[in-house]
Parts: sequence; structure tokens; C-alpha cells
Amino acid sequence: MHNRAITIAPSIMCADLCNLEKSVEEIKRAGLDTLHIDIIDGAFSPSMPLGIDTVKQLRNITDLDFDVHIMAYNNEFFIQEMLNIGVQQISFHLESGIHIDRYINLIRKNGVKVGAALNPATPLCTLDYVLPQVDTVLLMLINPGFATDQNESQVSYAVKKVGDLSQLIKKRGLDTRIEVDGRVSLDTIPGLVRAGADILVAGTTSLFLPNHSLDENKRLVEEAIAKGLNAGVK
Amino acid sequence: MHNRAITIAPSIMCADLCNLEKSVEEIKRAGLDTLHIDIIDGAFSPSMPLGIDTVKQLRNITDLDFDVHIMAYNNEFFIQEMLNIGVQQISFHLESGIHIDRYINLIRKNGVKVGAALNPATPLCTLDYVLPQVDTVLLMLINPGFATDQNESQVSYAVKKVGDLSQLIKKRGLDTRIEVDGRVSLDTIPGLVRAGADILVAGTTSLFLPNHSLDENKRLVEEAIAKGLNAGVK
Amino acid sequence: MHNRAITIAPSIMCADLCNLEKSVEEIKRAGLDTLHIDIIDGAFSPSMPLGIDTVKQLRNITDLDFDVHIMAYNNEFFIQEMLNIGVQQISFHLESGIHIDRYINLIRKNGVKVGAALNPATPLCTLDYVLPQVDTVLLMLINPGFATDQNESQVSYAVKKVGDLSQLIKKRGLDTRIEVDGRVSLDTIPGLVRAGADILVAGTTSLFLPNHSLDENKRLVEEAIAKGLNAGVK
Amino acid sequence: MHNRAITIAPSIMCADLCNLEKSVEEIKRAGLDTLHIDIIDGAFSPSMPLGIDTVKQLRNITDLDFDVHIMAYNNEFFIQEMLNIGVQQISFHLESGIHIDRYINLIRKNGVKVGAALNPATPLCTLDYVLPQVDTVLLMLINPGFATDQNESQVSYAVKKVGDLSQLIKKRGLDTRIEVDGRVSLDTIPGLVRAGADILVAGTTSLFLPNHSLDENKRLVEEAIAKGLNAGVK
Amino acid sequence: MHNRAITIAPSIMCADLCNLEKSVEEIKRAGLDTLHIDIIDGAFSPSMPLGIDTVKQLRNITDLDFDVHIMAYNNEFFIQEMLNIGVQQISFHLESGIHIDRYINLIRKNGVKVGAALNPATPLCTLDYVLPQVDTVLLMLINPGFATDQNESQVSYAVKKVGDLSQLIKKRGLDTRIEVDGRVSLDTIPGLVRAGADILVAGTTSLFLPNHSLDENKRLVEEAIAKGLNAGVK
Amino acid sequence: MHNRAITIAPSIMCADLCNLEKSVEEIKRAGLDTLHIDIIDGAFSPSMPLGIDTVKQLRNITDLDFDVHIMAYNNEFFIQEMLNIGVQQISFHLESGIHIDRYINLIRKNGVKVGAALNPATPLCTLDYVLPQVDTVLLMLINPGFATDQNESQVSYAVKKVGDLSQLIKKRGLDTRIEVDGRVSLDTIPGLVRAGADILVAGTTSLFLPNHSLDENKRLVEEAIAKGLNAGVK
Repeated sequence: MHNRAITIAPSIMCADLCNLEKSVEEIKRAGLDTLHIDIIDGAFSPSMPLGIDTVKQLRNITDLDFDVHIMAYNNEFFIQEMLNIGVQQISFHLESGIHIDRYINLIRKNGVKVGAALNPATPLCTLDYVLPQVDTVLLMLINPGFATDQNESQVSYAVKKVGDLSQLIKKRGLDTRIEVDGRVSLDTIPGLVRAGADILVAGTTSLFLPNHSLDENKRLVEEAIAKGLNAGVK
Repeated sequence: MHNRAITIAPSIMCADLCNLEKSVEEIKRAGLDTLHIDIIDGAFSPSMPLGIDTVKQLRNITDLDFDVHIMAYNNEFFIQEMLNIGVQQISFHLESGIHIDRYINLIRKNGVKVGAALNPATPLCTLDYVLPQVDTVLLMLINPGFATDQNESQVSYAVKKVGDLSQLIKKRGLDTRIEVDGRVSLDTIPGLVRAGADILVAGTTSLFLPNHSLDENKRLVEEAIAKGLNAGVK
Repeated sequence: MHNRAITIAPSIMCADLCNLEKSVEEIKRAGLDTLHIDIIDGAFSPSMPLGIDTVKQLRNITDLDFDVHIMAYNNEFFIQEMLNIGVQQISFHLESGIHIDRYINLIRKNGVKVGAALNPATPLCTLDYVLPQVDTVLLMLINPGFATDQNESQVSYAVKKVGDLSQLIKKRGLDTRIEVDGRVSLDTIPGLVRAGADILVAGTTSLFLPNHSLDENKRLVEEAIAKGLNAGVK
Repeated sequence: MHNRAITIAPSIMCADLCNLEKSVEEIKRAGLDTLHIDIIDGAFSPSMPLGIDTVKQLRNITDLDFDVHIMAYNNEFFIQEMLNIGVQQISFHLESGIHIDRYINLIRKNGVKVGAALNPATPLCTLDYVLPQVDTVLLMLINPGFATDQNESQVSYAVKKVGDLSQLIKKRGLDTRIEVDGRVSLDTIPGLVRAGADILVAGTTSLFLPNHSLDENKRLVEEAIAKGLNAGVK
Repeated sequence: MHNRAITIAPSIMCADLCNLEKSVEEIKRAGLDTLHIDIIDGAFSPSMPLGIDTVKQLRNITDLDFDVHIMAYNNEFFIQEMLNIGVQQISFHLESGIHIDRYINLIRKNGVKVGAALNPATPLCTLDYVLPQVDTVLLMLINPGFATDQNESQVSYAVKKVGDLSQLIKKRGLDTRIEVDGRVSLDTIPGLVRAGADILVAGTTSLFLPNHSLDENKRLVEEAIAKGLNAGVK
Repeated sequence: MHNRAITIAPSIMCADLCNLEKSVEEIKRAGLDTLHIDIIDGAFSPSMPLGIDTVKQLRNITDLDFDVHIMAYNNEFFIQEMLNIGVQQISFHLESGIHIDRYINLIRKNGVKVGAALNPATPLCTLDYVLPQVDTVLLMLINPGFATDQNESQVSYAVKKVGDLSQLIKKRGLDTRIEVDGRVSLDTIPGLVRAGADILVAGTTSLFLPNHSLDENKRLVEEAIAKGLNAGVK
């Protein structure tokens, strides 16, 4: 019926940070192969979930794909640190740098996938010359780094923006993947997938829903994805 | 003979960051009661060892004293985050803020101990009106955040600076504690303790020396401390 | 004939700042209900016309609508201050912030109207996902904060930009209001209104023209508006 | 007995900002000749009490001495603006600039008095080469710009710091005046004056005490001053 | 057949910086009338090829047109310095300023040509209201200030971006010139000219190719231009 | 009588920047062996006399000692660039960096002499732990980067500060050299040398006095030095 492969990328912020080894083993055992890692500098956003040394030590004990999302002012420093560690994809924000093309090259030259991350309000025209150079566009559906603010909900235009981007990618004949991040939940997944989302950053509103096992949650997420896939064609 | 209590503060950066729960239990079992935690923003220094969320989760599973060392530009943000988590001492750098007195008040008002951290080259006159307001002065003996640079060694004037500060504290009739941080090793501990150091941040050159158990290393550190205490009176 | 309501928003910068109470009473008596207040931090633009405490005290003595235009780097601080005071609309610049969506939410959650302010050269595509979230778009027609520079005149493309925005709003089926700011004069008002301007920030080239009473000037401004309204349909 | 002239400098922030003309007339009528004006940029400290245009218009209607206290990052901009307006003294913070000597020259060349402002924790050694070049040293006794924070009280070492500075000035044979700012109250004035304070920034804890007329308060302040003068010799 | 005048603008960075007088004479003698001068502040990009005083002294000894490309954060400072020296065209980056319209006015008022410089990834919509105000759009085809990085090659979308801009200019009925900068070589010139480039910044891959005289290289460049002009019509 | 060797360091800013090769040959021929090179970033001070590429090319054609004075915010970048070029001494400003000790190490590890540069108003206590680590202290006697401002004269406390530093060096038993920079003239040299200056940065008020040959000026400077040396012992 459909053959789009949707990636579920569990967010490390929802793992047990005092027992990361156990957490990543559990993720692996559940059949997931990607770990979404947020690197925030406390200045781009008032948040600094976890550190570089943690990622470094984690690299030594797991072969999960590391999908790193940098939210920082000094893109070049953090990109270089992540390249040194050995990760599989690095996304950085177009809003916080003026040498976009250079950061992309820096990542690609190292054989690592590149993602362009966009804040909710950022227009898609910023991608005009960037789109063909990146593997992924990461759309923030909440304001980055404010996730713990309980009043922060997914932006109302989430599905529309995913759809607009999906159209744009198709129109230009590209196969760029769309990653969505922020309150991606069992309720919102069908709509986001239908609109074109390929990678779902999964946190406490999906894969880490309290009172369920990871396996149970994974099944619920997959059902939500299937609902989205069946409902429409990208 | 002597009754100075020297605190050994194991640095969390040397712990197993993928199994922090196990690490802090081991530290506790070894009879240590303090955990030294470096919070760096990647801008004050090119380093960001661990994140706020990690400290937050760690707080829930251990009653060790958290001795936090902030190396950041936005002192107010990180101080507030650490106060929210519930730590026992917060040191911040005098070089990176212009409202020193305010940060001190902010910490004290919350019943938390305050430390004034100084880079190696920073003169002690910066403490003129700060000294009576703080519990601890943290002297960096290497350049903060560059610890992983293998060529970085302890500054040659480490013992002299500790001694100068010790004199100053005595002259003013205070009981401020002196914390030393950076390549504090079995070799340098006796001299530092003799010069007046009260809190030793312990890392890979002392408590976490490879090829020894934590208990063995602790014994070696205590011997080095005893050597310093016997050699002279503060 | 037409039923568009055009708002005249007298700029507080043109009031008698040593007798603000008298000034706002006069404005009220003239039948005007809005006061345009520029908050500039001296860094975004080399200007800092009036302070927060002045606005705070002013709030206590008048029930005029406060239409605040923030020109600053630290949007979050100034927005919060204005929310605390109790104002009716807050516009901030899209050029000076990376968490646009967040500032909008912050203002809306407090029941206050939101305006997106754009410098003359800023393209309208920055509004792609912002437009449906805001009540007003404030178009700067001179460079903000340089008004006192006598050589500074209204940009040549003022009417065109207002017209483009008006088209955009209609095309998307919205009722966003267009506010124009900068050398809005008796001469330029008809064209601006015709092109779609809804709120006119009125200063020394219109409502505060020297050698006329406020009432006389208001009549002249209204005539200019009528001319614009009659000449065309928005 | 003594002939030290103590200046009472009423803070404009405590005046009626909506009726400044009336306020300054009242101050003048009370026999005071100086107005203390705080210019804060909202970035050096989270505060921006009043604006440049307000000071400009105020200059036209009163001949009171303007004693301006700049708390900002861009000293050069604000100094130049104040020089253009025509003020009598400009103090700026030594903590927020690296061309201290230049700012001093800029002010002196214009025939305006210069003040060096110091935050509470700033040591006096920063004055080593500055002291003979300035007319006044302004000691902040609370943290600048946080006055509205009700928990903010005068620093415990206020009298000591004034005394230290007074000694330093005498030792170097200078006649630099000492200005004190922050919770200068009827209670603290005697001690501060005794320690050597020459200019008292007067706010809601002295000259603007609620429930008294300005004249009554002025008499109380003068009594407190006299108490300080009689108690000791500078 | 065609009458488009293509300007070859030799980059001063490729000249003999220890014998600039001789270098510019040689350039003049070769029949070239323009000198492309890069002014970088070491912060916008990690590079600072030459200084303001060098340009100032150069101005006194040659009447070549100075085509200055500012890559800096403080556009206003460098624009003013260049205006003081007396240059013929000033381009600045749209990415590093928020008062674009003002910088344009500042340059134009002085009778100097204006260029809007764009980094490779910057979309053309930033030109929406800028295009009719400028004489030239300078498209960076490598990342500015990283030219010495040997791995840095011309962006793959160079020709496409020149073509897009050329279409845009024609569609709006303007005669804005397109300047291309970065690895403009004998190989790439035909394609760039064909796509619409009017001014070629010429460095070590064209006019300063090693092992040839300037005259020989100039001839080769002209042949490459001719190839581009004959191949298509702008 | 005396055996202090005073170094005359001609400032490259006074050379013929369009014929640097000829200028440095002339300097060499005059028997001088040091070239003082100011590297300013246009942000630390509003000046950017010459660029890195100029220094690089200059290095290839002369064996004069390069005595580099960095006036910049990003010390680490400029220090590294100068180390790559191969210079003999690098001075940086203590006011513009927080990792002073690290910059010193970085320079020393490369076998290059280190200078600590101080603005006029900066107190000597900043040198407390720095003095034994550096080869030279460079005292600015005018405000750095404002040399072209004709109203800028040498600070009145120039001789006193040199004397204070000289005393300090002797008291600590060091042989640190004192470099003086800013309006070092035939008139001020004797006093500065007498007070303890070892290296004289020579510009238009000494070695480059108009209407004299370099040789004549050198003789005058040497006479002024001799006057200073004879008048007193360091």
C-alpha cells in the first residue's frame, strides 16, 4: 500500500539520565535504531539538557544512530565536537548563524548527514538554496528549549507547515526528509505523517507516555503512524 | 595534632556518565559526601561537560552534597537553575559578571553556600569586598574548561596563590574555605594542603587514577592530605 | 461609502514629556483613544526616548489604549515589563529575535494584542507563518530610532509595501491591521490609507504640526484620511 | 565646627514622572539645586527608568544641576547624548567599559564634571590611576537597577567602603567627592556622612518618604546629615 | 552581437601587499580600472586581509575605482571609514545588519554606489525591497573569509543563483549589476557570464594565475568572458 | 655608566603602507631590528590599521623582529594567526579576555615572547599573578586605537605609571621589560626612560617626525634616550 519508512527517534531527554546505558539498551531492544540528542547552550534557549561528555561516553557503549539537534549560537564549535564524537546526523538552526553553507559543508565533508532546523515562525524561503544541500529539514513545532514550560503547546500551523514543505520538496524533485520535533503525540502523529513527516522526535507525549512500557508505547506510535500513512499519500 | 577538615570533592566529569546512579552510589559507599559538578556553557570555555537535566535527575537519587561550579556568561540563569534543583554550594566566576554582589545575595537568600571562583591569572584584590560575603573561594589552577587539553598543566604559582589567599583570610579574621580545582594530584596535594587548601576537587590525577579502585585511590589521597597537614599549620 | 475605521495613534514622543498628564488629557479631549509609545533600548537603535517607569506612572492616570512599539534586542524583557504595566498592544521587531513565535504567545496569553514590526528593508516573507498569529503588522517607513536625523525621509517604497501587505492579508482571508510609522504626514496619509494602512502613528508631520492646535491638526489628518478612503477601496 | 558641604541629590525616579515640570519646581523651591538622573539601558541592569528625550525636554525648563548616572554597556553613546543635552556631572560604571580614560577625557573636555561609578563588589584598586582624573566617585550601595526588588537592601559593608575610599582620597591628597547611591535613608545617613560621603542620592527612603512633604523630609535629612557631621570628622 | 560591458575587478588580496604602489600601477597599465578591496573584521569571518590605513594611503596614489566589500558586524563604522577615504562602491552584507535601508541611504547620500552582498545560502527574497535601491548585488560563491581554506570550492548552485537573480532583475525592469565573488575562474567565467554576471572579482584562479603575466591572464579572462557572452543573451 | 639596552620599535603604521618593502629596508638600514605592528579589529577600538595578510607577506621579505600588539576581543584568533606567521613577541590586552593565563601559555609554548598590554586606566594589580609569566608589560599611554584623534594626548600619569611598574618589577626580583606606546616623543622619552621604560614604540612624534630623515630622527631619539639614562638609574 505504502512504502514510506517513518523513523521514530526517541529523545534522550526522556531517558533515565542516571542510567543511560540501561536506557539505550532498552531502546535498542525495542527495535529502534535512532537516538535524538538535543544539544542546547543555555543562551540560544534557556535550557541545557545534557552535555558533550555525556554524548561522548554514550558513543562508546551503543551503536544507535545519533541524530543530534544543535540549538546554540556557536554552531561551528558544537558541530565540530559532534563530528569528533562520531554521530550520524547533525541539524543546526538557520536562525543562529550567517555561514549556513559552510556549516553544511563542514558536516558533509565528514560523511555525516545534515539537517537544517527551523523555528516555528521561520519562513521556508530560507531554504531556497539550502534545500538541495541537506538530507533533512527539522521543523520545530514548539519553541526550542522551552519544552518544560507546561503552557507551551504545538503551534497551530504545524500540519500546514509540514505540508508546505512537503510540496516544496516534491516540486523541486528532491527526497529531503522532514523531521518534526515538539509535542509529537499519538493525537498529532497521524496528521503530521499524512502531511509528509518522515522522522518523528518522540518524547513524553508518545514513546515515553507514563504508565506504559516502551514496547506498548511503540505499538501505539506505530498505529498512529499507520493511520497517517493510510489516510493519504505524501 | 591538627583538626582541619579537608573535603575531597570527586568531580562528576570523571564518573561513568552512562551509569551515574552506580557511580554516585560507589562514591557514597567510599565514605565521600560531596560531588563536584561543573556546569559550563560552551562559550565561557569551549566545553559543556554535562547538562542541567542530568543534575536534576541526579538530585532525585542521591543525598550527596552538590558542589556546583558554574563557568558561564549568564550567571543569573544557571544560578537560578541550580537553586531550583536544590544544591548545597554554588560557585561562579568573578570574571564573567558585573553584578557579583547580587549573585551572592541570590544564592545566600536560598540558604545555599556561595563560592567565588577565580581564574588562575585573576588577582585577589577582586575579593576585597567579596571575601566576607562568601563561604568559599574556588581557585582554578588550570584554565577552566580546557582540562582535556593534554598540554594544560597546573599553573606554576598554584601553591603561592593558595598561600596568599590563606594569609588574606587569616588577616581579615575570616574562616572562608579555599577550594582548589585543576590537576589536583597525589603529588601536588601535600603542597596545596600545606598552603591552606580546604576542599580538593578530585579527578583523574587523584581519586580517579586509572588501574586503582576508588577505595585505594581515596586512601592515597588521604595520605597525601595527611602529609600536607603534618608538614605545616595553616 | 466606506466603513474602514482608521486609527490615529499620537506618538508620545511628540507630547510634552515634562507635563505628560496634561498632554494625555488633551489627547483624550480631542477624541483620540490610543497613545503610541516607543520603547527603544539605545542599542537596537541609537535612541532611548522614554523609560519604563514613565509608562508605569502614565498607566495610573489615563485609560487611553497604550500601543507599545518595542525596538530592542531583549524582546522578552521589554514585553514582560509592558505586560506587567498593562498595555493594549505590543509590537516587536522580527529582526531582533529568534523566538518570534514565543514572543507572540507570551503577549497573547496575557490578552494583549500583538504586532509584528518590520524595518523598511525587511521582506514580507518573514510573515509567512506569523501573519495569522498577529493582530497588526507595523511597517516602519523610516529607519527606527533615527527619526531625529533631519535627512531621514520616508522610504520611496512606502506605499508599495503597504499595498503588497494589504494584498497578502486579503489573499489569506485575514483581517490583520496595518500600522504605518515614520513621517506619516498630511501629504502621505491619503496614499498610505488608499494602499491599506489602518493605524497611523501620528507625530510632528501630522497631529503635532507646529503652529496649530491639536484639534485643528486632528481635523486636517481626518481630511487626509477621508481623501485616502474615498480614492480607493482597500 | 565643620564646614563640609553635603549635597542632597533627589532622584528623578522618585518624582512625579507625569508632571515633571511641577516636580522639579518643587525641588527647586525646597532649596535643592541638584537632580540625580539615572540612565539605564535595560541590559546593564534590567531597568530603564526614563529616557533621553525626557532629560532633553527637562533641560529646557529648569536650571537645576543635572547629576547623571549612566548604567549602560555603550558608555560612549550615552555620554555623548548627555553632553549634547548639557548636564553638570556624568558618572559611568568602571565595570562596563575598557576605555575608561577616554570616557573621562570626553566628559572633561566638555567642561562637565566626571564621576566614576562602582558596583558594590568592585574593589577600590580599579581607581588607582582614575582617582586623580575624576571629580566624584559614586559608590553603589545596592545593586544598580534592582532598586525595585523589595528584598534588595543596602550592602552590609557600605560604611566600610565609604570609609576606605575616604582614607584613600586623603592619603593621596585629593579632594574627590564621594557620592552614595542606594537605600540612603534617615537611618543610614549619619553613618555614611561620618564615613565620608559628600553627595547623597535621595529617594523613597529619605527625601521622598511617603506621608511627609518634601520640606519636612528635607529637614529630617538635614538633621541626619548634621548627626553624621557632628559625630566625626572626615 | 552583444553590448554588455563586463567589469573585471582584480582583488587586492592577490596583489603584492608589500609593494602595493607597484601592483596598482601594473593593474592600471593592464587597462583595468577597478580594484576590489575586501574589508573583514576577523569576527564576521576568521580573516582580516588588510587594514583601513592601507586603503587610505592607497587612495592617495591611484585613481583606480575602489570597489569595497565589507564583511563585518559593525557595518556603520566601516561604511563611514570608506566614505571618508573616498571609494567608488561599497557593498555590505545583508546578513549582518538590521538597518539595511539606513546603510544604503548613508552610502547613496555620499554619491557612492551601493552593493548588497549575500552569502551563498541567503535567499533572494531578502532583496524584495532592497533591489531597486542598490546599484549592485554581490553574490558570494564561496563562504566569505574562508578563501584560504583549500577545501573550499565554489558552491554548486553558483550559476543557478546568478541566473535566478538575473531573471528577478529583468522581471522588475531594473538594471542592477550582478557581481560574483569566489573562485571565479577561467572555467567558471563562461557559465557565470552567460547566467548574467556583470562584475567578476578576479583572484588567483583567473587574473592572478601563477606562471603567467597579468596581461596574459587578462587576455585569458577576456576570452572566457567572450565565450560566456556569445553563448547566450542575458 | 649604564648598560640598559633601550629598544626603539618603529611603528609600522607610520611606514609607507604602499611600499612596505622599501620602508622595512630603510628601517633595517638605519640599524633598527624591531618592527612594532598594531593589529586592531575595529571593535576593541574604532581602528583597523593593517591586516593579517599584509603581515604574512611582510614576514617573507624581512628578518626584522615583529613585535605585535593585539587590540581585539578575540585574542585567541589573532594570537594563533600571529603564531602561524612567525613573529617574535605578541602582546594582548588584559582588559579583553578572561583566559589570560591560557593566552600566555599559548604564546610561550610556541617559543614566542609574551607581552601583557594595559590600557591607561587599568591598575597594576591585574599583573599580580601575570607579571612573572610575561616577558614584557606594554603600557598604553594614550587610548588604544584613537591615535588619529588629534585631541588625544599622552596621559598625565604616564611617567608615574612607568615608575610604579618599574618599582614593582624590582621588588619582585624580575627582569620584565616595560614597553611604552602612545605619543612617545623627543620631549617625553627622557622622563619615560628615567622612570624605567625599556622599549619605545616610535611613531610620528619621534622616529617619523616629518621633515627629517629616518637617520636624523634616530639620532634625536637616541639623544633623548641618553638624556633619560644619564639622569637616573632604573
